[in-house]
Amino acid sequence: MREIGIPELRDLARGAAVLGTGGGGDPYIGRLLAEQAIAEHGRVPLVDVADVPDDAMVLPSAMMGAPTVMIEKLPRGGEAASAVRALETRLGRPATHTVSIEAGGLNSTVPFAVAAQLGLPVVDADAMGRAFPELQMVLPTLVGIGATPMALADEKGNSVILDTIDNRWAERLARSATVEMGCTAMICLYALPGARLEEALVPGTLSLCEELGRLIASERAAHGDPVGAVTERLGGRALPGGKVVDVERRTVAGFARGEARIDGEAGVLGLSFQNEHLLARIDGEVAACTPDLIVVLDADTGEPVTTEGLRYGQRVAALAAPCDARWRTPEGLALVGPAAFGNDCAYVPVDDAAACPS
Amino acid sequence: MREIGIPELRDLARGAAVLGTGGGGDPYIGRLLAEQAIAEHGRVPLVDVADVPDDAMVLPSAMMGAPTVMIEKLPRGGEAASAVRALETRLGRPATHTVSIEAGGLNSTVPFAVAAQLGLPVVDADAMGRAFPELQMVLPTLVGIGATPMALADEKGNSVILDTIDNRWAERLARSATVEMGCTAMICLYALPGARLEEALVPGTLSLCEELGRLIASERAAHGDPVGAVTERLGGRALPGGKVVDVERRTVAGFARGEARIDGEAGVLGLSFQNEHLLARIDGEVAACTPDLIVVLDADTGEPVTTEGLRYGQRVAALAAPCDARWRTPEGLALVGPAAFGNDCAYVPVDDAAACPS
Repeated sequence: MREIGIPELRDLARGAAVLGTGGGGDPYIGRLLAEQAIAEHGRVPLVDVADVPDDAMVLPSAMMGAPTVMIEKLPRGGEAASAVRALETRLGRPATHTVSIEAGGLNSTVPFAVAAQLGLPVVDADAMGRAFPELQMVLPTLVGIGATPMALADEKGNSVILDTIDNRWAERLARSATVEMGCTAMICLYALPGARLEEALVPGTLSLCEELGRLIASERAAHGDPVGAVTERLGGRALPGGKVVDVERRTVAGFARGEARIDGEAGVLGLSFQNEHLLARIDGEVAACTPDLIVVLDADTGEPVTTEGLRYGQRVAALAAPCDARWRTPEGLALVGPAAFGNDCAYVPVDDAAACPS
Repeated sequence: MREIGIPELRDLARGAAVLGTGGGGDPYIGRLLAEQAIAEHGRVPLVDVADVPDDAMVLPSAMMGAPTVMIEKLPRGGEAASAVRALETRLGRPATHTVSIEAGGLNSTVPFAVAAQLGLPVVDADAMGRAFPELQMVLPTLVGIGATPMALADEKGNSVILDTIDNRWAERLARSATVEMGCTAMICLYALPGARLEEALVPGTLSLCEELGRLIASERAAHGDPVGAVTERLGGRALPGGKVVDVERRTVAGFARGEARIDGEAGVLGLSFQNEHLLARIDGEVAACTPDLIVVLDADTGEPVTTEGLRYGQRVAALAAPCDARWRTPEGLALVGPAAFGNDCAYVPVDDAAACPS
């Protein structure tokens, strides 16, 4: 166990936005939210999955909605804790820990804000090893853990408790409530007994986020190669970078969907996204797709660029990196592979060099 | 106290569809639902408001959604009781009674189905004295009683609990959940302590429904004048009847909205509806509007015609009748008067003969 304070949060939020693959929220807002709570309530213990007792009650906390809206409609600060309190009341049991449901600039820092406010430790893990746009797209679904009972809370003071027949219905009902609440809401779901963390989580994600963030900062300070260092650390490979020449973005059904086109010397990179990057094409040919990670970074600084932050004229680098091995099983691919997002390409692992142009 | 069995339900459902003013659900489906439950579980006690103890916990039960969908997507039977059970769990207290939230062919019989299944008595009352399309449009709102905690349940097994900052937010969040559930859901809301029934309910509504239903049947059997008898009983006045020559209907945002035109010798009657009839015009001039009741009946049989049942070529009679006096206060009119539905006419009480063409 160690403690996370304000200095660690900057690296953690930045690195989380790398694993967020374009989604998971803005790291600047995420950092401010957690910093404020830590300044007020003190540093937050970060504990390893292996050190969580079997009888613990781990309640993940997150923001749900369209990142395009999140950057304009800021959280008030207490609604994530309200969602956790609402779920505790429904369960009739207090939380012993909170955890990040997905890696992302906001969704890896929200648990620290909640933890500071409620006096809880954070488990060093997440439920995806990256970010995905829909709430059934987590490892707990693969091992039969229900998303509900689930709580949603908004900045106005409204809250909702869902009990659904499956995790896709949790997504449907939570999404429509989130849209009604103004396209963003704070959520608490997938109540996890300590005994099931190993199978349901990716251990060490938050430490990895912090490490990635520190790597970017140190390479930049040393006039090194932040993008290359991140690619190497994730075991990934470069995609063609260049200038963002087109971004088509729409906020649809509570999601930020769109396409981006990046022109560079090594080819034209086309990106499709739904909050997160889903598919990358090089000169029209599929080069990487979910569940592997597709990451866009500022070409100079190595700072991660979220899908809502993509702008015409930006100079960016891009990379693809392998996902957690559990996503590559038939069940994993059925949940988050290309077909789950309506893309009809076959999944080719990004680290299967023979099958990929490079 | 008396008991309601299958013979009483037929009259009650028919008369409730009169007070439903075009909405409140189809009386045939409503009757079947309650008959099935009573056949299985036995007759249901109907108690007067005055006989309910102050410490009673009265949980109203109803269907929410678009009547146009309700006639094609039938309830499974147990979901209304599920909604009541979900609210009991949230409140940590069992219901002692249930009651109708609005008069209507379905929404006056749903409480009998719930009561039979759960072994509860029904209170002889409703919360409007008619039907209105939105769930904040009830007398409890006028006296500061919250709609939430509120439960919704669907036929698939999903349930939702809402806690909102006001009753309009309850409507917004419940409506979006209902739309997601397939445009209809069963609900339980406005938990009422026995001590507040007098101020929050219209006593005797269910008995009045039964009386109206019996009146229509007996006048018809005697080759009398069912429409005239209903008009007189409600203290209303006739609107021009005739042939339905145009119906424009759309299911929008979970409501059945539309316009109908009825051509007759006494003039052209134009009706605007949102589940319920909201406004009646004679030759283009406003003749009646909410909160007063606008009722359409089959010209021959006197059977009430719901807005989803309006069809080209039908021969109908129409009438307008006064609402509960509490709706005519400034607060009542702000909640359910013409402006609440975007109609910019002034409210003229339908029984103020001097101001009305007749």
